[in-house]
Amino acid sequence: MKLYGVPISTATLRALACLSEKNLDYEFVPVNMSAKEHKTPQFLSRNPFGQVPAFEDADLKLFESRAITQYLAHTYEDKGTDLIIRDPKKMAIVAVWIEVESQRFDPVASKLSWELAFKPKFGMVTDDAVVEENEKKLEEVLDVYESRLSESKYLGGDCFTLADLHHLPVVMYLMGTKVKKLFDARPHVKAWAAEIQSRPAWLKVAPS
Amino acid sequence: MKLYGVPISTATLRALACLSEKNLDYEFVPVNMSAKEHKTPQFLSRNPFGQVPAFEDADLKLFESRAITQYLAHTYEDKGTDLIIRDPKKMAIVAVWIEVESQRFDPVASKLSWELAFKPKFGMVTDDAVVEENEKKLEEVLDVYESRLSESKYLGGDCFTLADLHHLPVVMYLMGTKVKKLFDARPHVKAWAAEIQSRPAWLKVAPS
Repeated sequence: MKLYGVPISTATLRALACLSEKNLDYEFVPVNMSAKEHKTPQFLSRNPFGQVPAFEDADLKLFESRAITQYLAHTYEDKGTDLIIRDPKKMAIVAVWIEVESQRFDPVASKLSWELAFKPKFGMVTDDAVVEENEKKLEEVLDVYESRLSESKYLGGDCFTLADLHHLPVVMYLMGTKVKKLFDARPHVKAWAAEIQSRPAWLKVAPS
Repeated sequence: MKLYGVPISTATLRALACLSEKNLDYEFVPVNMSAKEHKTPQFLSRNPFGQVPAFEDADLKLFESRAITQYLAHTYEDKGTDLIIRDPKKMAIVAVWIEVESQRFDPVASKLSWELAFKPKFGMVTDDAVVEENEKKLEEVLDVYESRLSESKYLGGDCFTLADLHHLPVVMYLMGTKVKKLFDARPHVKAWAAEIQSRPAWLKVAPS
């Protein structure tokens, strides 16, 4: 197995988190984005959108981080941490929260991590209006999470699943910004974020 | 089974398209959004984000249209059209294109359908700058689709799957706007869009 990516990219880290939880052997192939390697014909044959990550398992080529994690969780279900639930009705609930991350959390949280974590790193100016607008939206999402996490330990149910794992990279970046206060203000969200961030498999691949 | 929603909502239509393809019996329960019914405690217990659709199958309550379609396609695999593929590697490719719709197509295409299809209907003013920006982004996505659809009849592979189905409502709205020209300029995309829009199961539920 090979994962092509950039170690600070949230999508790359999402796939790495899954490979680590599943305790799989893989080769990490760094993509040099400054040299526009992701826009070369060779890389576009791995991911036609010219974005990281891209993934190979023998002759199978995949892209889109959440499709890679689904493949790993289903194909290697007997390896490492079980990240799906066998019961169809329980798995349907996990699927709901996988969609919530993708549709409700990520669009807002990624804008905040771009403005507050990445722009300062790259010497760019943070747009305060974008931050304010998305902080409000994130509060609404985290209010729903607080309610959900007061009923079940993890978003998808009683155990850690892909629904939680998909949050790891963006939550990590937000914890280093002023947005951390929005998590800290909600006790169940705060405890959940701290617990998933401290998972040994995640600490092995998270940038220090 | 009950689907709570609004007949013109793209997310509601995505779930309806799947119920129709699977040839399932269900009750459609209209939600009166003008009366803010989607923000009542009763509706929030079905979808904590106060959005449509929400779904019930006996004691199972789901929301998020793409989680509902996944549940229906996997649980009722012997009913109606098969919308998933049993082979794990082929299904992994379908999952990639399900993610492409969710992450690349929908954010751009939904902004265009809001500006060009919904705003005029509601007497609101279209933001031309938003249209121009998203037309460019949609062209990039459709270029990838054109290449993909020149190799396989459908996005996920040789047969119609959830990857195609998830596009139906937004493509339908865009076909009634000037953005149709971006589809028509790409022969494989044009043929794919025309074919999926003419599916009998979709015509049964699509607004006329």
